[in-house]
Amino acid sequence: MAPGKKGIIERLNAGEVVIGDGGFVFALEKRGYVKAGPWTPEATVTHPEAVRQLHREFLRAGSNVMQAFTFYASDDKLENRGQTLSITGVQVNEAACDLAREVANEGDALVAGGVCADPSYLSCKSETEVKGIFKKQLEVFAKKNVDFLIAEYFEHVEEAEWAVQVLKTSGKPVAASLCIGPEGDMHGVSPGECAVRLVKAGAQIVGVNCHFDPMTCVKAVKLMKEGVEKAGLKAHYMVQPLAFHTPDCNCQGFIDLPEFPFGLEPRILTRWDMHKYAREAYKAGIKFIGGCCGYEPYHIRAVAEELALERGVMPPGSDKHGMWGAGLEMHTKPWVRARARRDYWEHLLPASGRPLCASLSTPESWGVTKGHTDLLQHKEATSTQEMKHVLEKQKKAKSSA
Amino acid sequence: MAPGKKGIIERLNAGEVVIGDGGFVFALEKRGYVKAGPWTPEATVTHPEAVRQLHREFLRAGSNVMQAFTFYASDDKLENRGQTLSITGVQVNEAACDLAREVANEGDALVAGGVCADPSYLSCKSETEVKGIFKKQLEVFAKKNVDFLIAEYFEHVEEAEWAVQVLKTSGKPVAASLCIGPEGDMHGVSPGECAVRLVKAGAQIVGVNCHFDPMTCVKAVKLMKEGVEKAGLKAHYMVQPLAFHTPDCNCQGFIDLPEFPFGLEPRILTRWDMHKYAREAYKAGIKFIGGCCGYEPYHIRAVAEELALERGVMPPGSDKHGMWGAGLEMHTKPWVRARARRDYWEHLLPASGRPLCASLSTPESWGVTKGHTDLLQHKEATSTQEMKHVLEKQKKAKSSA
Amino acid sequence: MAPGKKGIIERLNAGEVVIGDGGFVFALEKRGYVKAGPWTPEATVTHPEAVRQLHREFLRAGSNVMQAFTFYASDDKLENRGQTLSITGVQVNEAACDLAREVANEGDALVAGGVCADPSYLSCKSETEVKGIFKKQLEVFAKKNVDFLIAEYFEHVEEAEWAVQVLKTSGKPVAASLCIGPEGDMHGVSPGECAVRLVKAGAQIVGVNCHFDPMTCVKAVKLMKEGVEKAGLKAHYMVQPLAFHTPDCNCQGFIDLPEFPFGLEPRILTRWDMHKYAREAYKAGIKFIGGCCGYEPYHIRAVAEELALERGVMPPGSDKHGMWGAGLEMHTKPWVRARARRDYWEHLLPASGRPLCASLSTPESWGVTKGHTDLLQHKEATSTQEMKHVLEKQKKAKSSA
Amino acid sequence: MAPGKKGIIERLNAGEVVIGDGGFVFALEKRGYVKAGPWTPEATVTHPEAVRQLHREFLRAGSNVMQAFTFYASDDKLENRGQTLSITGVQVNEAACDLAREVANEGDALVAGGVCADPSYLSCKSETEVKGIFKKQLEVFAKKNVDFLIAEYFEHVEEAEWAVQVLKTSGKPVAASLCIGPEGDMHGVSPGECAVRLVKAGAQIVGVNCHFDPMTCVKAVKLMKEGVEKAGLKAHYMVQPLAFHTPDCNCQGFIDLPEFPFGLEPRILTRWDMHKYAREAYKAGIKFIGGCCGYEPYHIRAVAEELALERGVMPPGSDKHGMWGAGLEMHTKPWVRARARRDYWEHLLPASGRPLCASLSTPESWGVTKGHTDLLQHKEATSTQEMKHVLEKQKKAKSSA
Repeated sequence: MAPGKKGIIERLNAGEVVIGDGGFVFALEKRGYVKAGPWTPEATVTHPEAVRQLHREFLRAGSNVMQAFTFYASDDKLENRGQTLSITGVQVNEAACDLAREVANEGDALVAGGVCADPSYLSCKSETEVKGIFKKQLEVFAKKNVDFLIAEYFEHVEEAEWAVQVLKTSGKPVAASLCIGPEGDMHGVSPGECAVRLVKAGAQIVGVNCHFDPMTCVKAVKLMKEGVEKAGLKAHYMVQPLAFHTPDCNCQGFIDLPEFPFGLEPRILTRWDMHKYAREAYKAGIKFIGGCCGYEPYHIRAVAEELALERGVMPPGSDKHGMWGAGLEMHTKPWVRARARRDYWEHLLPASGRPLCASLSTPESWGVTKGHTDLLQHKEATSTQEMKHVLEKQKKAKSSA
Repeated sequence: MAPGKKGIIERLNAGEVVIGDGGFVFALEKRGYVKAGPWTPEATVTHPEAVRQLHREFLRAGSNVMQAFTFYASDDKLENRGQTLSITGVQVNEAACDLAREVANEGDALVAGGVCADPSYLSCKSETEVKGIFKKQLEVFAKKNVDFLIAEYFEHVEEAEWAVQVLKTSGKPVAASLCIGPEGDMHGVSPGECAVRLVKAGAQIVGVNCHFDPMTCVKAVKLMKEGVEKAGLKAHYMVQPLAFHTPDCNCQGFIDLPEFPFGLEPRILTRWDMHKYAREAYKAGIKFIGGCCGYEPYHIRAVAEELALERGVMPPGSDKHGMWGAGLEMHTKPWVRARARRDYWEHLLPASGRPLCASLSTPESWGVTKGHTDLLQHKEATSTQEMKHVLEKQKKAKSSA
Repeated sequence: MAPGKKGIIERLNAGEVVIGDGGFVFALEKRGYVKAGPWTPEATVTHPEAVRQLHREFLRAGSNVMQAFTFYASDDKLENRGQTLSITGVQVNEAACDLAREVANEGDALVAGGVCADPSYLSCKSETEVKGIFKKQLEVFAKKNVDFLIAEYFEHVEEAEWAVQVLKTSGKPVAASLCIGPEGDMHGVSPGECAVRLVKAGAQIVGVNCHFDPMTCVKAVKLMKEGVEKAGLKAHYMVQPLAFHTPDCNCQGFIDLPEFPFGLEPRILTRWDMHKYAREAYKAGIKFIGGCCGYEPYHIRAVAEELALERGVMPPGSDKHGMWGAGLEMHTKPWVRARARRDYWEHLLPASGRPLCASLSTPESWGVTKGHTDLLQHKEATSTQEMKHVLEKQKKAKSSA
Repeated sequence: MAPGKKGIIERLNAGEVVIGDGGFVFALEKRGYVKAGPWTPEATVTHPEAVRQLHREFLRAGSNVMQAFTFYASDDKLENRGQTLSITGVQVNEAACDLAREVANEGDALVAGGVCADPSYLSCKSETEVKGIFKKQLEVFAKKNVDFLIAEYFEHVEEAEWAVQVLKTSGKPVAASLCIGPEGDMHGVSPGECAVRLVKAGAQIVGVNCHFDPMTCVKAVKLMKEGVEKAGLKAHYMVQPLAFHTPDCNCQGFIDLPEFPFGLEPRILTRWDMHKYAREAYKAGIKFIGGCCGYEPYHIRAVAEELALERGVMPPGSDKHGMWGAGLEMHTKPWVRARARRDYWEHLLPASGRPLCASLSTPESWGVTKGHTDLLQHKEATSTQEMKHVLEKQKKAKSSA
């Protein structure tokens, strides 16, 4: 760690609010450096300038954490996803750490190394094999001396526990973040129980990331906090949600939405939605507040601006942003000038410009398919033909009466 | 121009489709380098790495034109907008040209220098004064030897004519682009007549940019083309629309929408919308096809991908993009794999995730305000009180009958 | 006519506003007496009490015209539509006239007999044959001595002219109403020209009914009025629109909407929409203002209430209606009491309660089908396979460079 | 009871599905005979033909129960609501019973007399006083010898218990129906506990009516059934929901929606929604299935048609209705003919035609108002001014560093 910087746990223990960054895979997909589908981070080696620039933008926006871009950077993921790369996982992870450290040193940010859900677990590999994959990434993080570690984007608490157990061996602080909502993990383990298990496995910070919109994620972390407190344990809490409105998700999150991943635009949160999210997370006692897929630097800046009084600091990027639309004060049109006030943006209900589109979707998944089949079967049973038959009988009965 | 590169007019004369870039002010506002309201481009001096990176992303996405980031870079605009900068307009313009040239040289792109609508015109300064401002920017473009010039974002064709007349003195090719829709400029001059006047002023390429969504802009350029052809003149055509759906705009465009500029997210076009736009523009005979506010690199890539067969080339950035969702072919969930096909994305009607929001807005402007006043006056005249009076009279008449 | 009643033309000449009734086929379909599809009015014979009751409700709501329920009551229509009835067209028409007269006599209303578009015209029968059908119905109207005649629901002005010519032979006043919008009749004859032709054929009142929402219909009648005045002719004007919002219709009206006729509920106008319609029609100089499909008695009452000051009379049914929500003044909940004011209802934007539904539809018709085919053909031409081919060539070119 | 008719309990015990009718106050408000606000049923005396006709339409639609129109027909309600009537409560109730009996005798329907929530309870009158009011109505029902009794539209289970206790004294079967959703009554008593208390008070049929849409009501009755079964008791179940979509209601139901009662049109259910409701209610084991506010005869007919196979009978009114759009089979336009199939209507997502309206509303109530106040207070605390102050301090700190 750069001399003079406080560590993540020191900050949280001191009651500070730590601002996270946004998700790199979605942001860099839009910029042309990550392929949707595999979502792998080889850009750390092939296009370091793009990754560095995104780190810088989040730093300017107020992020205190530079997450090294190591998402899906395990060897089996890199191979598995149809990427024929001449780059090794070690190279990708090392480059990611170097870029994060370079930018972190330009401000007051910490570097985090991360591991995430791995295909080996889903294909039922042994605990030893799965842990082996986490260890390989951890070796790079240890060598590059990151400031703390994050085990994130796990749908199954068991795999997250394994990850935490591996990461703990490094002696560095460990955060654990599941991609679950208030209904719990894919095996139905409740958020409260998930959190207890993660804390017992050694995580000092627990929370959720990805898969759901901010309000849903905050709700899930609240349930985690309740569980941990009820168990008489202690932890810090983190939340890094989507920047998409997903009120229509089922328990598996936005991946099941018909719009995933190439039609999510109408769901993107505004900066004003971010103010509400930051306030809600803060009120819930969550102190590590960041973002995941869909976040652009201005979203993180809005989080930092909402909590500027509590944190006593405005993000550097606010030199290019008037609070609550203040930048419109000098507009030539009076009705645009009239938008330079908090009340206006806080209550705006933005239109989609898409009158042929609905406001909610029906998530696709096995359940829906099954329901549809039931429907089809019922349809057979009550067809118009049969109805006509009933009607016929009825008429006969009448005429014979 | 870099040796071996064909100029803009040579390309268009050869029937090539030239792909433009996206609008820098909105993209860099989201990244933290441009202030909404003033919208000035001092980042070319203060944060050149951010501007350079955005150029690179558009180049990767397939852009053949690097527009130097000189929007609102006239001295009076820089001063006018409450920016107390220690940087001169000349510095901003020079840095912009250097950045554009640096990245253009990394591929097959041309550099364009641009002037745009100026506050002097709106405040009724003389033709000489307004032209003086354009001349000042042109001096930099001449010194930096840009490949061609664009006069863009004009609401009044007269000011655009003045700009074209100034730019023509350089001997370089001149494009002229108005921010108007099918209803014409702010004085009611039709698109057809606007185009004729711009061609007569010396523009070799005419079209529209900003203020309206793609389909509306294509419609306006079609009207321009009809006007030019009816007048027996010749020109090339360009279109660089918003990446926002704006079916509810009135003639002044998206600035009058209640969502401008901080609540436009639900209106952002998907990449699939861009395919339809690119096809429609191509069919209309428009050969310079790009974007303006709201465009991210992946939007331009979609334009380039749609026209790949016609142009015989895929953009470099397509190495990170499967056509029509092909990147999902290996997803673990069968219902996500089922999205790896053109038919799915082409017909998707994406939900907004915002059930409390409408799909269209009522644009704000003088007209609306006036209508509202009429309404209020009418209200007075037909209040419940008066109705009760009528009812009273009626009852009396009955009872006396 | 009942002694002492003023005729329709006398009323209109005196500047009175005449309130029409609502469409019987839709209202009685909901009540169970008309079959959607055939839409024929045999209920006048089979269930006279239901038809009489609906007349009474419109009378209470303020209607000055009782249109005998003779829609689609021509013999060929009755046979054509799969109705195996033991009732003749003459019986249906006679019963309709008797019911209308019975209720008209309970108040200050006139009885109108009507003919409408006939399948014979569409199947290219001769002018003589088509006129023969109208004559048959006219014989009943003459015998029953209705107060005036309406030729309505014609898509082709030519057929309407024939109807007017027949009806004129009776010596009674004749109104002619087309089911067209601002784009004109099915052969592209403009509303203005349609109106001129109808006036020349002998109609004293011209206008439109059905097929479009109130604002669209008023717009069409305005164009009729302009045409008639430009031609130096004179006429009175009528409008009897749908009670459904149809901003998404194409020129053939609501029949092409996917929701026709069994899913139109979300489009039903509120009483407050009716106030705006009545005001707009009145301002346009239309003096015969009524309704068609979708109208319930309370819609007509709202029209009568909006124009109560101008007409100097409130409808009888207003004894069961507080103007602008006044009936809520004593509600137990304060926030419901707060709705007892004009401003509230006038600006309410009512939600649909259907977050999975869009706000607009794409009308179905040949044009759409054709567009879809074009789309499919284009799809073939630019498939992912071909794109990959381009990409392949490109890579080879690169590697050989 | 008419000789030969089976009683309500006999029918339910035999496993028959009993079809209820629709709500009279909303239907007759639209027809001009009930005033919104007071919602009292004096039309039984002043306009018996209108009430009789509505009964007949529901009978044709398949209703097996004619509920005498005695809603809000207690003396205190009639007086309380600003109605200066020369008619007594006894007259209204007697006329209601006579009309229901007259029409019931035209088919296989039973007559039910009903009492409902009374203002005396809300104003904290004693049990004796409240029961006295129910007794007064019961005297009429006994005299007119109705077939069974319904205590309905109670928000507080306690008041419903009192009503049941009174009605039981008659020796007639008693049904009890609360206007609650799955969250329970206004004092937070769960649906299960409410049902148990009502059964213990003597009700043989329990369920819910009004206030929520069909699916929500079915869910609430399911919870009632679970409660009753868990308590080892036995009962029959009934449901008579709104014909409005109300997914956005809070626990007090549609009265809190901004659209109540004059802007609910876009929420009206289609006949196809009714098929889904009827099937869902049937599958839940509910055997008395009817409707409340918003129901028109065609809604009840759809319920009867959906369950025609199970009941072995089609409603008389189906002679004017083709199942699943079959009436369109002979339409002249092929794309309208294509709608003559179950699959089309079953999956139709009908548009509202209102692009300026949202799909959901925010219900108004004390909670919302309070939330708004909190918001305002927070606003004060984090104003732009204070933010500027923070920024200022920050700049000073920087410059002094």
